[in-house]
Amino acid sequence: MTTSVTTAVLERAWVAGAVRDEVVVEVDGDTLVRVEPGGSAPGAERVRGLTLPGLANCHSHAFHRALRGRTQRERGTFWTWREQMYDLAGRLDPDGYLRLATAVYAEMVAAGFTTVGEFHYLHHQPDGTPYDDPHEMAHALAEAARAAGIRLVLLDTCYVSSGFGEPVEGVQRRYSDGDADRWAERFATLPGKTTGAAIHSVRAVPADQVATVAAAATGRPLHVHLSEQVAENDACLAAHGVTPTRLLHDAGVLGPLTSAVHATHLTDDDVTLLGSTRTTTCLCPTTERDLGDGIGPGRALAAAGSPLSLGTDSHAVVDPWEEMRALELDERLATRQRGHWTAAELLAAGARHDSLGLADVGAIAPGQRADLVTLALDTPTTAGTGADEHTAVWAATAADVRRVVRDGRVVFDGDRDAVGRALAAAIEEVWS
Amino acid sequence: MTTSVTTAVLERAWVAGAVRDEVVVEVDGDTLVRVEPGGSAPGAERVRGLTLPGLANCHSHAFHRALRGRTQRERGTFWTWREQMYDLAGRLDPDGYLRLATAVYAEMVAAGFTTVGEFHYLHHQPDGTPYDDPHEMAHALAEAARAAGIRLVLLDTCYVSSGFGEPVEGVQRRYSDGDADRWAERFATLPGKTTGAAIHSVRAVPADQVATVAAAATGRPLHVHLSEQVAENDACLAAHGVTPTRLLHDAGVLGPLTSAVHATHLTDDDVTLLGSTRTTTCLCPTTERDLGDGIGPGRALAAAGSPLSLGTDSHAVVDPWEEMRALELDERLATRQRGHWTAAELLAAGARHDSLGLADVGAIAPGQRADLVTLALDTPTTAGTGADEHTAVWAATAADVRRVVRDGRVVFDGDRDAVGRALAAAIEEVWS
Repeated sequence: MTTSVTTAVLERAWVAGAVRDEVVVEVDGDTLVRVEPGGSAPGAERVRGLTLPGLANCHSHAFHRALRGRTQRERGTFWTWREQMYDLAGRLDPDGYLRLATAVYAEMVAAGFTTVGEFHYLHHQPDGTPYDDPHEMAHALAEAARAAGIRLVLLDTCYVSSGFGEPVEGVQRRYSDGDADRWAERFATLPGKTTGAAIHSVRAVPADQVATVAAAATGRPLHVHLSEQVAENDACLAAHGVTPTRLLHDAGVLGPLTSAVHATHLTDDDVTLLGSTRTTTCLCPTTERDLGDGIGPGRALAAAGSPLSLGTDSHAVVDPWEEMRALELDERLATRQRGHWTAAELLAAGARHDSLGLADVGAIAPGQRADLVTLALDTPTTAGTGADEHTAVWAATAADVRRVVRDGRVVFDGDRDAVGRALAAAIEEVWS
Repeated sequence: MTTSVTTAVLERAWVAGAVRDEVVVEVDGDTLVRVEPGGSAPGAERVRGLTLPGLANCHSHAFHRALRGRTQRERGTFWTWREQMYDLAGRLDPDGYLRLATAVYAEMVAAGFTTVGEFHYLHHQPDGTPYDDPHEMAHALAEAARAAGIRLVLLDTCYVSSGFGEPVEGVQRRYSDGDADRWAERFATLPGKTTGAAIHSVRAVPADQVATVAAAATGRPLHVHLSEQVAENDACLAAHGVTPTRLLHDAGVLGPLTSAVHATHLTDDDVTLLGSTRTTTCLCPTTERDLGDGIGPGRALAAAGSPLSLGTDSHAVVDPWEEMRALELDERLATRQRGHWTAAELLAAGARHDSLGLADVGAIAPGQRADLVTLALDTPTTAGTGADEHTAVWAATAADVRRVVRDGRVVFDGDRDAVGRALAAAIEEVWS
């Protein structure tokens, strides 16, 4: 095993919308310069299995991973889950978050993600006082991503209200810069090319401040939680007389660099607005199952013109293959029909990076970054399933990933035990 | 690693409804004779991880595993999926089915199942002629189970009509004994204590023959596909003026040894009938997702008195942990509430063996068979999730199973590669 890839022969690989055999790839630095199906490269390493482009985890709250298995003890709702999440949010400092996020990002890499969009709002000290460096938590996340080998797109999140004009309270003080202007001042000083912005939700940013965030984010990715819960829609209608989607549209938020996360409970008008503005819909099916959000109108949004992306959000599950198929499976449950999405469409959604502002990631093609995820084809889950894109989408699990290359460098070589040990240590520290 | 267990110390284990530490177990032959939490046994093997009772796969069509990943190519319905399944059903002979089922049962064991209820209707040669030994296919399944190390409960299935009085056609001729009387004659000659019977469905057994099957099955498990599809309900109402549940009830089929498989589309009266007769509801959530069946009223059935069991049915997924949590997660999607089932309830459903006629399997307790399934607690999926029943139900996957003991004998030691290779070979043979 080399730590960087130069020339290799991929036994099977997803190239230009089809699985091809014996694909020769050449990498110059971090970029693919040759992709030749049916080629030969004497002496080059041969990579057994099915190789896919690197997958994008477009919606992550890294610290939620520490909640997995721990929030199911009582019957409840999204809102009781949120109380437990807030308890956790109060416990983290930059050093602890560095260790936790490093382990969580390593789990993502081992599952096949090469990029994460981190929807980051844990900005300040627990009482709301900024750290000496106001980006200290963001730096911890960047360092975690470097250590884990994942590409980070930090989505710096504006969160200044506990709901429709109410002041922040409790742990929410960590999240708040006071108002959108002060958030924008801090955002302007954030270093790094691969950053974007986020409006937490129409609950957390007052309607008259939403446009400030959008203006500050001009030219960068802008993400927003949208209509995950019916209660949010009801409160927005009561406060403003419009749906959250309409509110965002009227504030100039929607557009091709914007992602609406969840988009579960929408009116027909909302679907039209998101589609006609080419706003990406970022679905997080396994979290939406876990939180009982409901089944969003994914297919209708795509038909209206909204490109689709996927995220693991709360990390109840970190498995891009499960996320891809869950989108189709939950539409089947809602409609009692199969075949809403083809495997190729689901794979495209999983590999889409442009909603994170990255145009050169997400395909095995010359000029693209060398992100290569290889699945074993002879495991108990994948064996006998056709060895093509259907294997990836309908059979594979995170445990079937054997190797992950990002920017030409091997960032996962199959050692899942090491990933588990780091997670165990980091999460024990959080709860001790 | 020994091949049989005598005395061992389980680091953590699910005993009498709670996870306990350092559980000493002693096995005499195939039976647990001592289960002592917090005990000591100097020199005994220590089993790291979380040990659960053996899980029961109460609804299996083993050959469907060869369809995984291969039936998603075209948009369609349950009924178009069935056409592909019929193509497969026509290809199998006893030798090929032996090899396929051996590999499929090995996948089940590696996932944590120690028992399978095989809903078996592939009785005869493709043109409907019985094999020289009319139980040749059943013998192949029994041999497969022995080779794979799983406990088989064969549910010999009566299937004599293509639907409400229509004769069988095409590959269905393999399934049919002609009528229920001739099925019962064959069933009476089937050797083996651990056999039960099945009525394929109210489509496949005429209403006036249903009672014949029930009578032949007296004292044994009796399973039946029930109301998986709305179309079945509509046809039953048109033919008989009653729902399938009411038809089965009036024929004397329902009761504590009977399992209604799926039970997806029910009236309130149906729920009451299944609950008041203590008929088990066997849910197969991952198949019900895959086939777009819908979300059945699992919680309402349990509240009405119906015990719950689980099965992997079409084997789109073979993962008892995913099956347990899918039951809860899909109820969340249907209701937008969390907490319908506790982890303990879901684990109890997964471990229930009495709907397969087995009273001495499914708990880690003295007098029970020594079926012990051990999960690793430090994998990327399970690490940091609490190391208790919530880890098993909310985090674990089949890939986290490290050891499976059945009847005191180690039947899986963690070698997933061998399982994958056998599946690949057997399925390639089927489709070549």
